[in-house]
Amino acid sequence: MILTVTLNTALDLTYRVPALTRHGSHRVTDVAERPGGKGLNVARVLAALGHESVVTGFVGGSAGADVRRLLAGFPPVDALVAVAGNTRRTIAVVDAATGDTTQLNEPGPVVTPEEWAAFLTSYDALLREAEAVALCGSLPSGIQVGAYAELIRRAKAAGVPTLLDTSGEPLRRGIAARPDLIKPNAEELAQLTGDHDPLRATADARRRGARSVVASLGPAGLLAATSDGWWRAAPPARVKGNPTGAGDSAVAGLLSGLVERLPWPQRLARAVALSAATVLAPAAGEFDPKTYEDLLPRVEVTTHPNVT
Amino acid sequence: MILTVTLNTALDLTYRVPALTRHGSHRVTDVAERPGGKGLNVARVLAALGHESVVTGFVGGSAGADVRRLLAGFPPVDALVAVAGNTRRTIAVVDAATGDTTQLNEPGPVVTPEEWAAFLTSYDALLREAEAVALCGSLPSGIQVGAYAELIRRAKAAGVPTLLDTSGEPLRRGIAARPDLIKPNAEELAQLTGDHDPLRATADARRRGARSVVASLGPAGLLAATSDGWWRAAPPARVKGNPTGAGDSAVAGLLSGLVERLPWPQRLARAVALSAATVLAPAAGEFDPKTYEDLLPRVEVTTHPNVT
Repeated sequence: MILTVTLNTALDLTYRVPALTRHGSHRVTDVAERPGGKGLNVARVLAALGHESVVTGFVGGSAGADVRRLLAGFPPVDALVAVAGNTRRTIAVVDAATGDTTQLNEPGPVVTPEEWAAFLTSYDALLREAEAVALCGSLPSGIQVGAYAELIRRAKAAGVPTLLDTSGEPLRRGIAARPDLIKPNAEELAQLTGDHDPLRATADARRRGARSVVASLGPAGLLAATSDGWWRAAPPARVKGNPTGAGDSAVAGLLSGLVERLPWPQRLARAVALSAATVLAPAAGEFDPKTYEDLLPRVEVTTHPNVT
Repeated sequence: MILTVTLNTALDLTYRVPALTRHGSHRVTDVAERPGGKGLNVARVLAALGHESVVTGFVGGSAGADVRRLLAGFPPVDALVAVAGNTRRTIAVVDAATGDTTQLNEPGPVVTPEEWAAFLTSYDALLREAEAVALCGSLPSGIQVGAYAELIRRAKAAGVPTLLDTSGEPLRRGIAARPDLIKPNAEELAQLTGDHDPLRATADARRRGARSVVASLGPAGLLAATSDGWWRAAPPARVKGNPTGAGDSAVAGLLSGLVERLPWPQRLARAVALSAATVLAPAAGEFDPKTYEDLLPRVEVTTHPNVT
C-alpha cells in the first residue's frame, strides 16, 4: 500500500452565499463538506488509480469526527491518530455573484508530545506495509519544525521511498534528511533557495538533499530534475478551471509511477494529466477519469539539458 | 421551572481575523464557540437570576453534539430533541482591525414530521413541570409556519403562560393563538402590522391576539401595553456596546417577573436593566450581575396613556 501523512488534516467546508459583503449578514444557501488536507486528497486520487492507500495524521474534536465519518466506507483506509484538540475547519465562502472565494482557516489543534509519540509508533507499524510514503502539508502547533526530517529518517530505515510536499521551514528542514522526491511550486522553490529562477532553484534544491525535484510551474506543467536526467512535461493546451487539489493529484501521479517503477517520462505525463483533469473537474479537488485518459497520451514530455 | 423552546438552535462560532478582505485567504487567530439560539440565551440568563430553566428544541449532527457538550455540566437543563440533520453553525468573523463583524449563517437541518411528533410528545411532558414557556426564534426547514400557534395552544391547555419572541410569518400565525406576551422590536412590529408608528402598531398587535405587548425600542428602552395599563421603561443613560443577546436578556427579565408575579413596572425595570447590562458586558450575549444591580434601581418607568 501507499501511505500518505497529513499531520494537519481539516474539515473543508464550502459555503455558497448570494453575494459576500464585508460586515454584512449572510444566509448560507448551500453547505458542502469534505475531508481535507493534502495527504487525504493524494490518497483519494491513488485509490481512484487502483492503488491501495492509507491515510495517517492527526484528527480530533467534532470536526475530526466529521472527517472520519466522511472517510468511512470508501478507500483510502483511515489510520488517523486521535488527539484531544479540535481538527481545524477551513471555510471557503463562494460568492455566487462573482464566483470568487474568500478563505477562512482555523488554526487547528495543539499536538502534545505524548500524541506525537503515539503517532510515531503507529507510523513505524504502517511503514512495514508501505511501498512509498508521501508527507504532505503544514505542521500543526506543538509539532517541532524538524518533524518531517524525523519521518523521512524512519522511512529510510524501513526502506520506504519518501515524497515530501510541504513549504517554508518544514521543507527546508525536511530536505536535509534526503527525501527521494520533493514537489515544490515556483514560489516554494524561491522561498527555499532564495533564487527566483526555477532552473537554478531546482538544481539548488537537489544540492540541499532532495534526490529528485519535480517543480510545478502552474499551467506550464512540470520541470523534473532526477539522477536519470531532466525533463519538462506540459499539458496539450492551457487548462482553465479550479486549481484546488491539482498539486495533490500531481503528487498521486508521481507516487503511483514510482511504485509501478515507470520511467520518468511516463510518471511525469501521468502527473500532468491528473493535475489538468483536476483543474477541469466541476468539483474542487476531484478529477474526471475520462478527461484524464483523454489527456494522458497528449501530454508533451521533452528532455531538458541538465543544470548544475 | 421555566421552559424555553429554540427550534433552530445553533453552534455560534466567533472567528477573529487580523483584517477581512473579500476574496482573500485568512488565518483565523482565535476561535470561540458557544451554544446559540435565542431560547438558550434566555435560559442562561434565567439560570443566572436563580430560576430553574430547561431548554428544548432540536439538535443534530456534529454541531449539535458540540452544542450539547457546551451545555453540559451547567444550568440550564438540556432537554433538546435529537434530529438526523445537522444543527446550523453561525460564524461571526470579527475584523480585528476595525472591530466590525461579518456574519455567515448555515441553513440548519430539515426536520421531519416524525421528529416534530417526537418533539411534541417531549414538549407536552415538559409543560407539566413548567411555570412559563418562552418560544424563541426562527423555524427550521420542515416545520410548518403555524408551529408556534400549535405550541401556544398546547401550553394554554396545560395552563402554562406563553411568551412568543419571533418575527415574520411565524409571529403573525403565532399571535392568532393568543400568547400571553410578545416582545417584538420596532421593525418586527412594523412588519406584523404594516404600521411604522410604534404606538399604533403596539395597539394593533394586541388586537391581533397578544394579551400583552412589550415593544423593544432599542436604546430608548421598552414600551409595554397590558391589560393593567401602558408603560415606558428606559435605561438611566444611553448604553454603548454590543447589542447581541440584549433582547434575549429582556425576555428573561419579563419571564422571571411573570413567574414571580411582580407588578409590571418591576418586570419592565428588570428587563431594561438586564438588557443594558448585556450591551455593556465585554462578551457578546453575557451580562455582568454587578452592572445589572447597579442599573436596576435607576431604570425610569413611567405610565403612558393607553392607545386604542
